[in-house]
Amino acid sequence: MKTLYAADGSDLHPHFGPYFSDGKRRVDYVLAYQIQKPNTVRKPSPKFGENNFIPPLQPKEDPEITAQEHQTDYHEDDKRFRRDEYEENLLETGLELEKDEGSKIPGIGFLKIHAPWHVLCREAEFMKLKMPTKKVYDVKQGGNVVEKVRLFIHKVTAPLHPKVDVSHPHSVKSLSHPFSREKQHLFDLSDKNKFFDSTTRSSIVYEVLKRTRCTKAKYSMVLYSYIPFVVLQLLYEEWASYSVFYKYQPIGLIRKYFGEKVGLYFAWLGVYTQMLIPAAIVGVIVFLYGCATVDENIPSMEICDPRNNVTMCPLCDQACSYWKLVTACGTARASHLFDNPATVFFSIFMALWAVLFMEHWKRRQMRLNYIWDLTGFGEEEEVSVRNVKKNKASPDHSHICLFYLYVFKYNHVLDEKVKLTCSDRLPAYMTTVVMMCLMISVTFAIVFGVILYRISIKAALHMSSYPAARSNIRATVKTTAAIINLIIIIIMDEIYAAIARWLTTLEVPKTDKSFEQRLIFKTFILKFVNAFTPIVYLAFFRGRLVGRPGKYLYVVGSYRMEECAHSGCLMELCIQLCITMLGKQLIQNNLFEIGIPKIKKLLRQRKSEMDTKQEEELNKTLRRHEKDHFLGPFIGLNPEYMEMIIQFGMVTLFVASFPLAPLFALLNNIIEIRLDAKKFVTELRRPIAAKAKDIGIWYNLLRGLSKVAVIVNAFVISFTSDFIPRLVYQYTYSPDGTLHGFTNHTLAFFNVSDFQPGTDPLEPMHLGYKVDMCRYKDYREPPWSTTPYDFSKEFWAILAARLAFVIVFQNVVMLMSDFVDWLIPDIPKDISLQMHKEKILMVELFMKEEQGKRLTMRERNTPQQPRSRPNSHTNCV
Amino acid sequence: MKTLYAADGSDLHPHFGPYFSDGKRRVDYVLAYQIQKPNTVRKPSPKFGENNFIPPLQPKEDPEITAQEHQTDYHEDDKRFRRDEYEENLLETGLELEKDEGSKIPGIGFLKIHAPWHVLCREAEFMKLKMPTKKVYDVKQGGNVVEKVRLFIHKVTAPLHPKVDVSHPHSVKSLSHPFSREKQHLFDLSDKNKFFDSTTRSSIVYEVLKRTRCTKAKYSMVLYSYIPFVVLQLLYEEWASYSVFYKYQPIGLIRKYFGEKVGLYFAWLGVYTQMLIPAAIVGVIVFLYGCATVDENIPSMEICDPRNNVTMCPLCDQACSYWKLVTACGTARASHLFDNPATVFFSIFMALWAVLFMEHWKRRQMRLNYIWDLTGFGEEEEVSVRNVKKNKASPDHSHICLFYLYVFKYNHVLDEKVKLTCSDRLPAYMTTVVMMCLMISVTFAIVFGVILYRISIKAALHMSSYPAARSNIRATVKTTAAIINLIIIIIMDEIYAAIARWLTTLEVPKTDKSFEQRLIFKTFILKFVNAFTPIVYLAFFRGRLVGRPGKYLYVVGSYRMEECAHSGCLMELCIQLCITMLGKQLIQNNLFEIGIPKIKKLLRQRKSEMDTKQEEELNKTLRRHEKDHFLGPFIGLNPEYMEMIIQFGMVTLFVASFPLAPLFALLNNIIEIRLDAKKFVTELRRPIAAKAKDIGIWYNLLRGLSKVAVIVNAFVISFTSDFIPRLVYQYTYSPDGTLHGFTNHTLAFFNVSDFQPGTDPLEPMHLGYKVDMCRYKDYREPPWSTTPYDFSKEFWAILAARLAFVIVFQNVVMLMSDFVDWLIPDIPKDISLQMHKEKILMVELFMKEEQGKRLTMRERNTPQQPRSRPNSHTNCV
Repeated sequence: MKTLYAADGSDLHPHFGPYFSDGKRRVDYVLAYQIQKPNTVRKPSPKFGENNFIPPLQPKEDPEITAQEHQTDYHEDDKRFRRDEYEENLLETGLELEKDEGSKIPGIGFLKIHAPWHVLCREAEFMKLKMPTKKVYDVKQGGNVVEKVRLFIHKVTAPLHPKVDVSHPHSVKSLSHPFSREKQHLFDLSDKNKFFDSTTRSSIVYEVLKRTRCTKAKYSMVLYSYIPFVVLQLLYEEWASYSVFYKYQPIGLIRKYFGEKVGLYFAWLGVYTQMLIPAAIVGVIVFLYGCATVDENIPSMEICDPRNNVTMCPLCDQACSYWKLVTACGTARASHLFDNPATVFFSIFMALWAVLFMEHWKRRQMRLNYIWDLTGFGEEEEVSVRNVKKNKASPDHSHICLFYLYVFKYNHVLDEKVKLTCSDRLPAYMTTVVMMCLMISVTFAIVFGVILYRISIKAALHMSSYPAARSNIRATVKTTAAIINLIIIIIMDEIYAAIARWLTTLEVPKTDKSFEQRLIFKTFILKFVNAFTPIVYLAFFRGRLVGRPGKYLYVVGSYRMEECAHSGCLMELCIQLCITMLGKQLIQNNLFEIGIPKIKKLLRQRKSEMDTKQEEELNKTLRRHEKDHFLGPFIGLNPEYMEMIIQFGMVTLFVASFPLAPLFALLNNIIEIRLDAKKFVTELRRPIAAKAKDIGIWYNLLRGLSKVAVIVNAFVISFTSDFIPRLVYQYTYSPDGTLHGFTNHTLAFFNVSDFQPGTDPLEPMHLGYKVDMCRYKDYREPPWSTTPYDFSKEFWAILAARLAFVIVFQNVVMLMSDFVDWLIPDIPKDISLQMHKEKILMVELFMKEEQGKRLTMRERNTPQQPRSRPNSHTNCV
Repeated sequence: MKTLYAADGSDLHPHFGPYFSDGKRRVDYVLAYQIQKPNTVRKPSPKFGENNFIPPLQPKEDPEITAQEHQTDYHEDDKRFRRDEYEENLLETGLELEKDEGSKIPGIGFLKIHAPWHVLCREAEFMKLKMPTKKVYDVKQGGNVVEKVRLFIHKVTAPLHPKVDVSHPHSVKSLSHPFSREKQHLFDLSDKNKFFDSTTRSSIVYEVLKRTRCTKAKYSMVLYSYIPFVVLQLLYEEWASYSVFYKYQPIGLIRKYFGEKVGLYFAWLGVYTQMLIPAAIVGVIVFLYGCATVDENIPSMEICDPRNNVTMCPLCDQACSYWKLVTACGTARASHLFDNPATVFFSIFMALWAVLFMEHWKRRQMRLNYIWDLTGFGEEEEVSVRNVKKNKASPDHSHICLFYLYVFKYNHVLDEKVKLTCSDRLPAYMTTVVMMCLMISVTFAIVFGVILYRISIKAALHMSSYPAARSNIRATVKTTAAIINLIIIIIMDEIYAAIARWLTTLEVPKTDKSFEQRLIFKTFILKFVNAFTPIVYLAFFRGRLVGRPGKYLYVVGSYRMEECAHSGCLMELCIQLCITMLGKQLIQNNLFEIGIPKIKKLLRQRKSEMDTKQEEELNKTLRRHEKDHFLGPFIGLNPEYMEMIIQFGMVTLFVASFPLAPLFALLNNIIEIRLDAKKFVTELRRPIAAKAKDIGIWYNLLRGLSKVAVIVNAFVISFTSDFIPRLVYQYTYSPDGTLHGFTNHTLAFFNVSDFQPGTDPLEPMHLGYKVDMCRYKDYREPPWSTTPYDFSKEFWAILAARLAFVIVFQNVVMLMSDFVDWLIPDIPKDISLQMHKEKILMVELFMKEEQGKRLTMRERNTPQQPRSRPNSHTNCV
């Protein structure tokens, strides 16, 4: 921070950024271009990895260099000619330019752009920007009591608010109105330099740049804009620092300098993190409840009681022998931590929590929209590339340049295949479908591989005669398998992201929005499958495809499928979740989000062939836009969102099995916010302030996940945990209405003479006595029944109960969610009241104006004859 | 029609309606008021019944008469004073007035209102009305092939389109832009009389009326506006006539003369009816499939085969005796019509149909929004009554009058309790909750009563020795019970509607929107419960609470609960649905929608104390607004919507049991459209043209219903029909993989010695032989098992299968629905392309204008000094 911004170039005003050389005109935008064929300045084409989400709308991805790699056939002169033409066109629009080719970075020229007042006015009117008017009104926040409570809360939470000076006091707000030159008298134009802030100015210039035609396509520029130094300092101290982790984020400031889209991301992240606090607290309580009741849990007491002398069937063929149930005591007790009635409550709680979170976010978004004057703003329709290109009869070329600016990254594809028909597209779509299926099968194969690893290692360890190895078998196998899984997940994540990007490029989507959406969709599916397949296997398939003693299911020759521990697979699911969440977050955060950008920056600086000393020297004399050249480009928010969505999935989908998930997520997010903030403040070039009303497709994904979460949790509770069998036993089979005897009830009998030949234990006398009957966990008929080893009536009854529970749980929770959704209005009441009030005030304002006009008209018309005047709007009155 | 409009008053221009007495100024609105205390002109206060949805926003409900009944303490002078004041205020806004007190209707005065051009301009600007500009562009509907296909389709369906001359050819469209006086040059103002059409003019006047303040509240007016005679004729011929039932509706014309809200209703009804066509066709095919396969159905063949000599247990205590299964042959065959595999397919089809319908409607709505230039229009926030009233510090009284105009109907309540606190409201809310619960219990009680009726009649008929009575027992009981049910439903519908209205009035909602929503919500719940409770009972409870032989369940002393026929209750459910749907539609349509309005009109005319001859004479000389006075007020669209929603419920909720439901609904709706059209054209005063972008709460209700439909259908298929038991039998128990033996499998054994004392049949030898074992339909253990008469393993297995089917069906259908929802874009592609094109053209237009301005400026500035000019907007350029 210090090194970067303390000793800034002399052209920088601390509040408003740099000026033209006349010291009067502000620089609103800087374009960078190459002035000579670079011999050494060469970058590798962007690596796949975390950058996979580079949205084409952000033309800051150094496209000139990428472009240059593809089009070496264009000469410097040709380029200069086109640039000159473009600059002429820019001048035609009214912008003012200043060139700066004597920069200290060899080979790079800068074009500074200033938007004069009349251009700002015109464009603001076109863009229908809502600007504050002179009319100011009191904001009454409800009645007296409400106001007092609000003030009290504000006082209490004061230390949590960032120390950012707010220009308006909260009790007063200006009416906003779309800017219009005809209605200039409404606005406070006393200081024209301050009326449009720097973000607005640069986005206005960006609009003009997008619209300005450039006759030839192979032309591109790097775009910069500035954040004033004072603000950067403030953002750094009050936002991008770990020391303020407990504070709210200065969302207003973020929005002001990074635009609505980034502002919304951080606001969303803030809301999510905030909402995780109660979830984490309840999760910890549920966990503690499990800890507290572990000694009162009858099933685990029964398992741990050595008097219940239960002989269990061997866990593997030949190598394993019979074992005592009491040895599973530890796992049984541990299982209770995650498999107790509180878990059911927690599942329902988290389903409602997810709905509340969505609702809370909707309201927050609405409030932000209102505060940011976006209420009337409609999302811009994206330009359909094909439409514009084919529409040659129309005189409209204005968007072609825009198109070439921002889909530059893959226009070498587009140029050749502009008129893609269905049959042209078919191969790409087929490739996509095939590749997606292939990738998903790869994921499944990997999971199966890990299973085989576990089975074989377990068998090997069982066979080893070294007793220490045997005693720690389960723990060893579980942990190593989970870690292997984690590593594979992280590696595949990167590969899948690259494949998704490649596939989307192949498809040549018509618009950038469609590009982005398809990319997100593909990446989401692949990453989601990647992250959740092992977990889904553990939760729903492991231990279910085992067969029974005497008729085991074998895979790959003679490996028996994995069984669960006696108390179910919940414990293992829990370990897997824990390792995946913690590991993924730690590695991806620390390594990828901190480490790699640092390395990249270093590489970039080394590329420009200055050794560190020289560089530091230079750094002090470099001007802002020159320094920014070395910063990383802004690659969009999609990787950040994706990471959070996967985390949200972890938190909601399997929460029934791991109540501590919200806590882990919370801890991660507290770091994540400041990490992302640091990245935005110090590591990246300032992004174009993109307007957005909502978080777009991510909201739908969140909604979809929270719907899926309900059904997944229903299945986890009813099938993975022993909740339903316990309940059924207690209320139908138990002789005394308690769980006493439950363990015995869950164990079926097996006559050891029924073992398939060659599968009976090699050491049948391992326990010291001859075993005739061993027990295994299942609901099957005993050997002495007429249909031995068939599923028993209890099995079907419990299955029916499990399924009934799923139906009831799913529908009740869905109904409750819909009810909560319906109960909470999407627009906060105070905002809707205020909006209404503003509307009334606006009508009043205009009515007054009308009356004023009529009066002056009357006065004028009385003494003299009505005359025709140049402006047309009086015809009407 | 002829009598009403042929010989119209002389002040009526066939195209533009009436004029002021100067013959130049058009009448845009007419207010009616009472000029003397009426001695004889007195109407009953509105009856509860179909009018229960009178929305307070439609102030046409003759409130002056209602008011007058409540406030007789106000003298004529006082009223006149207030009226004068109001009229003065209207003049102040620029409107022009003409009084007409010498009307032919005694006691009623009319105030004609004309809006001059400048008022229209001003208000259009305030209301941000989108008006067509001069700029016209070609609408290209896709490529060449697409265009040809479109033209071909249009040609083929030409006879289906109403013969309404469309002013614009389809290939050209004007750009629309919010009207602004500063931008008048954009619009084609060559004919100022035609620029704003009559609907726009009257809604502009209505806006002004709403805004105009009237100091005292007890003042009200009846509001009229006109439809030109030519249009009425056209609407009558091309829309409100049964002879055009096969044609599309002239939605554009409807919207033009009745406003967007009414237009949307009829568009929705049209889409719904259109979508019912494929559903009806598939339904009929499914039904025919049932008919065709009835002879190949193995279970019914087994039942009908007299060689399967199965003795069934008696159906009632003592009076009934053992019976042969073969006697159930008829019912078994009939059941197959509605209980066959095609039904499952049809359920899934209808679930997807519902989603497609919603999607289709969304797209149609979007298209209409675009065609009607509503895309930028934001729904007006309703005025919060309390807020306005309490806000005395603010100088804004403009809405108070509006409030009194439209919540007039119950302002005697509001006046006293303006500042309602929570504790004031509590009793009303409590009443609501208690009453709603009470009403729902009443519905349950009625259903239970009908059950008792059925049980007792059946028992009585069984006991009678008259053989004819006994043979027709089932048919008689079923049919009479269903008819009784129907009559009760229709009566209770009216009562419930009245109660809902009363409860909502008690609650004193803060705004009219809230009033309407609460009313709709309550009415919906009550009517829904009323219509569906008997059906739900039949589908899910009947035959399930029976007990078993030897341990029957008794209600009210010694009545055994109803059993289903051997092939399940589906047949009875079907009969009930059929009678309810047909009966409800026939009675409610014919009696309530045609009969009652006719009677009301007659009553109204008789009230004005003219005998028929005089009246006819007078009718010819009456002017339009005088005639309109005798028409019924427009009472809102809610009853129409409600009727359709209940029908939609019938069509989707139990479609698994009655595949002909869509056909019945289709036939009904074809009539319904023309019936409603007739009502609008001839029976009702013209409603205020209310703007609306969507159908509001009804869309949510439809969505909710189609969600509920999925789960209800899942349960109907798995529990009410025998689909799952057949499937389970075929694939697990059947020795040869067919359904042979299924009937035997479903029947449990009962040892007649286990009858409870006093319940065994009086005539045990009725069949001619001694019975030791009888059979009954259930999955229970046989008497010789260790646990006799307990549920058998088959029972639990089939239950699990049923529940699993519910889960799979619900989730698969929900997933498919969501997928379809996601697949179909909400905005039709051509519309989104066109919208985008318009945006580009608009920018272009403005850019050209800008350049033009700059040029003229430059020209002006070159020869002479720049001067300050009166209009402000040049400051900027």
